[in-house]
Amino acid sequence: MAAAESKEVQGGLEWRVKVPEGSTAKMESEAAAFERAAAWLVGCMVMVRMKVVGTATRVWRIGADDPRKVMHGLKVGLALTLVSLFYYTRPLYDGVGRAAMWAIMTVVVVFEYTVGGCLYKGFNRATATLSAGALAIGVHWIAAKSGHKVEPVILGASVFLLASTATFSRFIPTVKARFDYGVTIFILTYSLVAVSGYRVEQLLTLAQQRLSTIAIGICICLLVCVLICPVWAGQELHLLIVRNMEKLADSLEGSVEDYFTEDRIADPKSTSPSQKSQGYKCVLNSKASEDSQANLARWEPAHGRFGFRHPWSQYQKVGAAMRYCAYCIEALSGCINSEIQAPESIKKHLSDVCMRLSSQCSMVLKDMSSSIKAMRRSQGIDLLVADMNEAVQDLQSALKALPSQLIQGTASPQREAASDEKHSISVTATLPLMEALPLITVASLLIEISSRIEGAVNAVETLARLAKFDDPTDDEKSEKMNNISNSEKVLQEV
Amino acid sequence: MAAAESKEVQGGLEWRVKVPEGSTAKMESEAAAFERAAAWLVGCMVMVRMKVVGTATRVWRIGADDPRKVMHGLKVGLALTLVSLFYYTRPLYDGVGRAAMWAIMTVVVVFEYTVGGCLYKGFNRATATLSAGALAIGVHWIAAKSGHKVEPVILGASVFLLASTATFSRFIPTVKARFDYGVTIFILTYSLVAVSGYRVEQLLTLAQQRLSTIAIGICICLLVCVLICPVWAGQELHLLIVRNMEKLADSLEGSVEDYFTEDRIADPKSTSPSQKSQGYKCVLNSKASEDSQANLARWEPAHGRFGFRHPWSQYQKVGAAMRYCAYCIEALSGCINSEIQAPESIKKHLSDVCMRLSSQCSMVLKDMSSSIKAMRRSQGIDLLVADMNEAVQDLQSALKALPSQLIQGTASPQREAASDEKHSISVTATLPLMEALPLITVASLLIEISSRIEGAVNAVETLARLAKFDDPTDDEKSEKMNNISNSEKVLQEV
Repeated sequence: MAAAESKEVQGGLEWRVKVPEGSTAKMESEAAAFERAAAWLVGCMVMVRMKVVGTATRVWRIGADDPRKVMHGLKVGLALTLVSLFYYTRPLYDGVGRAAMWAIMTVVVVFEYTVGGCLYKGFNRATATLSAGALAIGVHWIAAKSGHKVEPVILGASVFLLASTATFSRFIPTVKARFDYGVTIFILTYSLVAVSGYRVEQLLTLAQQRLSTIAIGICICLLVCVLICPVWAGQELHLLIVRNMEKLADSLEGSVEDYFTEDRIADPKSTSPSQKSQGYKCVLNSKASEDSQANLARWEPAHGRFGFRHPWSQYQKVGAAMRYCAYCIEALSGCINSEIQAPESIKKHLSDVCMRLSSQCSMVLKDMSSSIKAMRRSQGIDLLVADMNEAVQDLQSALKALPSQLIQGTASPQREAASDEKHSISVTATLPLMEALPLITVASLLIEISSRIEGAVNAVETLARLAKFDDPTDDEKSEKMNNISNSEKVLQEV
Repeated sequence: MAAAESKEVQGGLEWRVKVPEGSTAKMESEAAAFERAAAWLVGCMVMVRMKVVGTATRVWRIGADDPRKVMHGLKVGLALTLVSLFYYTRPLYDGVGRAAMWAIMTVVVVFEYTVGGCLYKGFNRATATLSAGALAIGVHWIAAKSGHKVEPVILGASVFLLASTATFSRFIPTVKARFDYGVTIFILTYSLVAVSGYRVEQLLTLAQQRLSTIAIGICICLLVCVLICPVWAGQELHLLIVRNMEKLADSLEGSVEDYFTEDRIADPKSTSPSQKSQGYKCVLNSKASEDSQANLARWEPAHGRFGFRHPWSQYQKVGAAMRYCAYCIEALSGCINSEIQAPESIKKHLSDVCMRLSSQCSMVLKDMSSSIKAMRRSQGIDLLVADMNEAVQDLQSALKALPSQLIQGTASPQREAASDEKHSISVTATLPLMEALPLITVASLLIEISSRIEGAVNAVETLARLAKFDDPTDDEKSEKMNNISNSEKVLQEV
């Protein structure tokens, strides 16, 4: 009998029908064959339907999670429709003629999700077309003067040389980051003009026509991109950093809470790490998007609360400092979820100090996050950092006290039985260092994390200075003054 | 007097001339002004020269470090020169006419550094042009039948709808990874054909011409890309993983060596972390390049020792497992370079076991690296992992013994003075846990790293199975048989 089996292979469907050797297959009735075919068909349809529904749900969610993506699609449609008006409106069409093709091409390749992307591509396209066109016309003119036989040689050699050099220049990091698209357009324009075979006079008309259509395309792109629900790369970067810092705070607090709270003690195996504690993973892999957004943000004009020369590169440094914390939180979460676990009796000795430290760290991070979000210097960051350092010292004292506590705990029943000196040494040896190891590591990593958070605090302070963050508002200031005068009063009373 | 000062601002040069208020400046002689101008000019020229030389050196190094990048530039030049032959060779030019422009455009945008990139773009361009062209001609035909007034409305609406939908589809991860370029070309081709205003018969001729020129462009690209020093994305990914694994091994061994060796003891402040120990940093940030290379490698045909359906995605998993180790090595190096350091007297108790464990871990990583490099199943990986686990157990025993060792060490002078039980308890409390903290953390992180390396071993085993790595060579096998028969002999003798 033939057996049909379905298998999902890399997102596609593969139907395999096994027909064993022998002639039994030939003798089966037509009805059975029909039934089988029907079953196969129904199975197929069900699979296809499930796949379609699944894909549709996923796609719907992309749009629902961020409606700006849908809006971007509509904006591209609008820009293209506007540009195609050039074909339908007679007077305009007569003006630019067939070159209107270049306006459409420009809109399709220049329109990007962010304003920065649009400006980057638009600027690159315009500059590259202009410079390559001018250069090509110049070379063309020289070649035309050199005689009929040498002309193709000069033009061919210049294409080869320029294309090779320009392509190689794309491997230079600065060029790659800022002018990658421009280099492509430069090569394209130069080759097209150099080998077009037109006379120089024809070329000048053509160039003027083409430049004006490209300019029209870029203008339409920029207008639609900036005027209708603009997405600014700078703002995206700003929000990404703010969001990541919050996630870092939550995941640090969440991990340590997960480790020490009662629920876990009651049933240590079943509780998986909470959603909240996994946020640091976003920070681990955010370098690529931070870099690209910072690159695009440089092209953007002043917008919202961001000035023209807003220090975008400092955001990258804040991001790097955050990742530096995230690596350590990753190691921490590895320890927390490792198989060897400290017994609860030992854990409870450090539970309070560790949780206090982690919540202090988290408060520092949250304060920074809200300070960046509001673009206002934080009032209380110094105080919070001081509190965090105090919590570090408390944890260190608790660690110092740990051995005696543990030994007293374990040694007390034996101490009653025997009291000669030799025995007390053997009691000493029972300090369960191995059992306490994960706990001690967690504590030590927390101390390391707090010192890395101080690095992030410094990076954010530099950002506040460079980006000229507002001073704390007057309300807050007066509150602070009140606090100070109160404390002065207290001092005077004392 | 005016003072000129030069300052490098973000890679550019900024010359600032301070002129203090007052009239003294006006009274200086012309000779002084000339001298100043000359000095400024010379300074300027020196700066420009230094900048040019610096940039030239950097660019030269890019080419010298990887000559394939220079070769890529030459290949692009060659492909473009080949394509421009169409303009100069009369018979060919008469065949394709002005549409030869599309061949040049195709070469410029399709030619990529890797064969996979070239194939990805070539396939996308061909498919998208074909499908969008067919669709556009169909819609054009329907619109033409609908009458003169409705025609632009139908065409405009179809452009708007298709462009919006296609642009939105680029946000779907699968489309983004595999068909991003194709979607752009789809929108471009559809818009150009739909609004071109030609009659359908003209369009068919045009489409046939354009398709053939695009095909010529893609063929030239692929031939030059594959035949002259091809760079395969798959091979690059393979080598990247091998190299990163070696770096991981070196940096793990290097960090622990740095920490425990005598040099550092002699002068703990001056020794910066060695170059060797910093290799893990490459692994931390390699996700983006691994992902893009794996994406491009899927488009490549069988080449070298890589079959057509080589499991490229498993390389990504191996990469992820390596990054998982790297995070922990990062935390380890943080502990090693932290300000608080364990005294050497305490360090020496764990020095040997820690260094043995790190060198065992490093051997496992190096064995995996050479196994992947040779695409051959490793003979001794199980043994090495067993050795590593043994080293872990040794370290754990050493940690267990640590408290008593430390206390004996610190307590011995006091023990002679007093020997009542109460005193021995106060001696217990002097266990310098705080001082030993960095050391204990290093040990604990080493244990965690070894368990993460086991995860990497599993990922590599899966890769070996999926990619059908060779079994160990016959030579190695016979060696192994010899060993077994020897041990059997020994057993018989016993």
